[in-house]
Amino acid sequence: MLGAAMKIALAQINPTVGDLAGNRRLAEEAASRAADAGADLVVLPELALTGYPPMDLLERDRFVDDQLAELDELAKASQRIAIVVGAVVRTADARPKSIENAAVVLAAGRRLTHRSKTLLPTYDVFDEQRYFANAKDRTPVEIPGLELPLGLAVCEDTWFQTRPYPVDPVAELAAGGAALIVNPSASPWHVGKARERRALLADVAKRSGRPVVFVNQVGGNDELVFDGGSCVIGADGTVQLAMPLFEPGLAIVELPTRRGGDGTLGLALGAGRALADVVDPSDVEQLERGLVLGIRDYFLKQNLPPGAVIGLSGGIDSAVTAHLAVEALGADRVVGIAMPGPFSTDHSIEDAFELGRQLGIHVRRADIGPVYDVYRQLFAKLFGARDDYGLTQQNIQSRIRGAILMACSNEENRLVLATGNKSELSVGYCTLYGDTVGGLAVLGDVYKRDVYALARHANRHAKERGERIPLRTIEKPPSAELAADQFDQNDLPPYDILDDVLSQAIEGGKSRASIVPPPGCSDEVAQAIFRRLDRNEYKRRQTPLVLRTSEKAFGGGRRLPIVHRYTG
Amino acid sequence: MLGAAMKIALAQINPTVGDLAGNRRLAEEAASRAADAGADLVVLPELALTGYPPMDLLERDRFVDDQLAELDELAKASQRIAIVVGAVVRTADARPKSIENAAVVLAAGRRLTHRSKTLLPTYDVFDEQRYFANAKDRTPVEIPGLELPLGLAVCEDTWFQTRPYPVDPVAELAAGGAALIVNPSASPWHVGKARERRALLADVAKRSGRPVVFVNQVGGNDELVFDGGSCVIGADGTVQLAMPLFEPGLAIVELPTRRGGDGTLGLALGAGRALADVVDPSDVEQLERGLVLGIRDYFLKQNLPPGAVIGLSGGIDSAVTAHLAVEALGADRVVGIAMPGPFSTDHSIEDAFELGRQLGIHVRRADIGPVYDVYRQLFAKLFGARDDYGLTQQNIQSRIRGAILMACSNEENRLVLATGNKSELSVGYCTLYGDTVGGLAVLGDVYKRDVYALARHANRHAKERGERIPLRTIEKPPSAELAADQFDQNDLPPYDILDDVLSQAIEGGKSRASIVPPPGCSDEVAQAIFRRLDRNEYKRRQTPLVLRTSEKAFGGGRRLPIVHRYTG
Repeated sequence: MLGAAMKIALAQINPTVGDLAGNRRLAEEAASRAADAGADLVVLPELALTGYPPMDLLERDRFVDDQLAELDELAKASQRIAIVVGAVVRTADARPKSIENAAVVLAAGRRLTHRSKTLLPTYDVFDEQRYFANAKDRTPVEIPGLELPLGLAVCEDTWFQTRPYPVDPVAELAAGGAALIVNPSASPWHVGKARERRALLADVAKRSGRPVVFVNQVGGNDELVFDGGSCVIGADGTVQLAMPLFEPGLAIVELPTRRGGDGTLGLALGAGRALADVVDPSDVEQLERGLVLGIRDYFLKQNLPPGAVIGLSGGIDSAVTAHLAVEALGADRVVGIAMPGPFSTDHSIEDAFELGRQLGIHVRRADIGPVYDVYRQLFAKLFGARDDYGLTQQNIQSRIRGAILMACSNEENRLVLATGNKSELSVGYCTLYGDTVGGLAVLGDVYKRDVYALARHANRHAKERGERIPLRTIEKPPSAELAADQFDQNDLPPYDILDDVLSQAIEGGKSRASIVPPPGCSDEVAQAIFRRLDRNEYKRRQTPLVLRTSEKAFGGGRRLPIVHRYTG
Repeated sequence: MLGAAMKIALAQINPTVGDLAGNRRLAEEAASRAADAGADLVVLPELALTGYPPMDLLERDRFVDDQLAELDELAKASQRIAIVVGAVVRTADARPKSIENAAVVLAAGRRLTHRSKTLLPTYDVFDEQRYFANAKDRTPVEIPGLELPLGLAVCEDTWFQTRPYPVDPVAELAAGGAALIVNPSASPWHVGKARERRALLADVAKRSGRPVVFVNQVGGNDELVFDGGSCVIGADGTVQLAMPLFEPGLAIVELPTRRGGDGTLGLALGAGRALADVVDPSDVEQLERGLVLGIRDYFLKQNLPPGAVIGLSGGIDSAVTAHLAVEALGADRVVGIAMPGPFSTDHSIEDAFELGRQLGIHVRRADIGPVYDVYRQLFAKLFGARDDYGLTQQNIQSRIRGAILMACSNEENRLVLATGNKSELSVGYCTLYGDTVGGLAVLGDVYKRDVYALARHANRHAKERGERIPLRTIEKPPSAELAADQFDQNDLPPYDILDDVLSQAIEGGKSRASIVPPPGCSDEVAQAIFRRLDRNEYKRRQTPLVLRTSEKAFGGGRRLPIVHRYTG
């Protein structure tokens, strides 16, 4: 066996939640390509047949059986190559739950064995203890045709050191004689996640003295974007292989085996690249690519061919949203509507149409003035005649625009993309049923500062190809233009201060009393921001799905009561 | 000690989530009243200081410390009487979590000890494994001044037999010598829950041979309504004490102690009432009272004194919603708006105003025609001139009404109550940003059949006091009146069929292929209903909070992907 090697294929696929047969076909295709390339084993992501996260589909009475049928169908493909695939399996006894989240070994045309997940993440967006029992068996598996025993560790099982878990599955697998840790995963992206993940896996590899093969899913499923970034880390913590981010693919690693001084067979890995030598796209580039993938899959996976419609205000949020939509869907599937109202400036309309020209999308114009005037007459009857209806008057403008966008959605079967950013959503600087309408809130987890970064990034090739986003849109002071001479900076603290305080509260998990006001921010302003964040939970509960880009997004990962009185 | 007794007070309080000091004062008041009445011990509900469910407030950095400070403040009240109170405590080691959900014993002015919850519900609306570590200690506690050791079992710990839990905490407590099971709880209501709960607790009492003191919280917190219904069950399964549903209160039970044949001291309970002899309000009465409590607390706990505004169509859903709002808030804090449009019938407007007279609420009229006409002119420009814009035209009518209701909310600081029922929400027979607008979807977990039952129930005193809901509203065929001669029964299957299929899917957890078509329903119709249910998840994600009345409501207890392809 001297000089032999294990040849392992990493199948970074993009499954669709619930598409059991379609996902099985993706797995078969990967297995076939891996076998053609001479691999001994192909590794697929966690829950590859259901797609991740299947959520409460797991509780439908036929779902697990239907998935198991597809697993058996996939097993046929293991005549040519051994397969490790993430799948739901039934537990031997049904306590405390009847299913487990397993890495299943398919070989010689059948289900050979499986090892289930021990550490079931139940925090942020994860609910795995809602569904699954913990693994009881943490022993390595021997697979015919592979020289060395493998340690199967599903996703979180390699993340022992990040939380106070009572058990270290990788340590047990290594102690049990696993030569290699195989880690099928569904690890969602946030900006910077790929780097964090490689550092963690390098630590796991070094502590256990075992190489790690990490295989992640890629693609958008509802609010979550998965970035792929599958990799192989040597036992010395070097990177042997790093797959691209945000796209599916198949890669093969050859792990030479060697007999050690004590006669035992082990893996001899050539020195890989140092961690620091693997360069990911910049943060803003990741943000752009992650959001583009999230938009694209949201449309593709629910089969919405006519594309998107976006209200274009001439401002930066809608411009960046339109740019991202064009990157995701193509210019021919994105339509903009400029909807000037009584307080709109000329430059807003010009900028909206200029954006349309630069992105190559069709932009229509729909003046809201006539509808607005009739609403005002109605308000005069209902509430008494006044010159200025204050907030009511601001909101109705936004709601007319929302209704026009939805009419376009009804007429043309287009999905409305909401354009609000995380800073606005946090403090409720938005109109429910107005600018919040839509199927997807593209920038709902992007602070205003990062919206600017995305805009500048969109224009990075301006010298060669011209701007994507008009410079005036980026440079003018932001305004909702719902009242005369209205500017965000009159209604809100400066965005750098706002975003700092919000980050402390949202991603930092701070109570009101723990907030440290940033330079230039009084304690009162910081407290007021915090209170606005809390008071606007009711709006966020009714806004569209937010694509998650950070460690704490509005959505399934942040569960706060609407009615509560905690002010500490 | 012969002839002595333990005197235990059950404090069924209504805490507000996050109101740490306010909840502590409720507990102090209960303790004081119980001490005045000569009780030896007062038992408060689960997590009584935080209110249940505190959700991710538990993750704010000062929240647990702030609650522990209130716990120490409450301990001062234990100079006069021993207190068992549900509270968050920190764990000794921080694995796997740093906090536990405990029953804390306060005595002689300080925290004496605690026992934590073992069975952490993580299903439906419950997320306790997200936050808490399981108990390690399941031994009884001895409290100075009480003759016999108590077994503290927090909420789910008495529900061992309902799920495949690996541990039976009550059995361990009984084996360890507990004379009595004390069960502080936060057990949410659904129709029929109180009866189920007493039957379960009777089973627990008989199996363990120990009486059970169950103390539940009462009141609405966001989507959840807690019904109280605290009770004492004898070791023989009889009901010694049953507190009222849907209202706070304090009750005292006297448990005589006696020395058994073997010389050990035990509890001698006089024969209580048989389970069947405790009569709860009827299902429809429970539904009414539960919804009324849910509405009232939603307004009270977020301090919304101006009350509610409701769009009145003349139909049954809005009529029942208005009736419930009046019961909850009083007629002077409810306003209706009738908003006739081009397809409204005369009787609709008459019925809306007749409802207003019968409920004693102010009803305004706002014709949507003029706004509608201007929108149509806009559509002609955007989409080409047509006589009929189909769905677009139907939806815009609903959205104009939504905008008017929100304008009234803006002007008068009233909360809009949404009127859609569960049948409609299930199949998406509603207009997003139209009839779904509001802060609370009162009937969102009530099938159409039960809306009728509520309406008839509202009129139960019609002979003495006249109808609450006009008979014509109940008797006429339901219609959205968004198009000429439109009736629900042209757009939907008959409601008895629709509700049957929906119940199988939603509460029954059935896959599409498992649905059994009810009599008179073809397989195709049943399948079509199921598909509509799945396809409209995106609407439900953006609708207001739904008050939970069933075992499976739309909201936090039902977590399904918007984009998925499972059709099995």
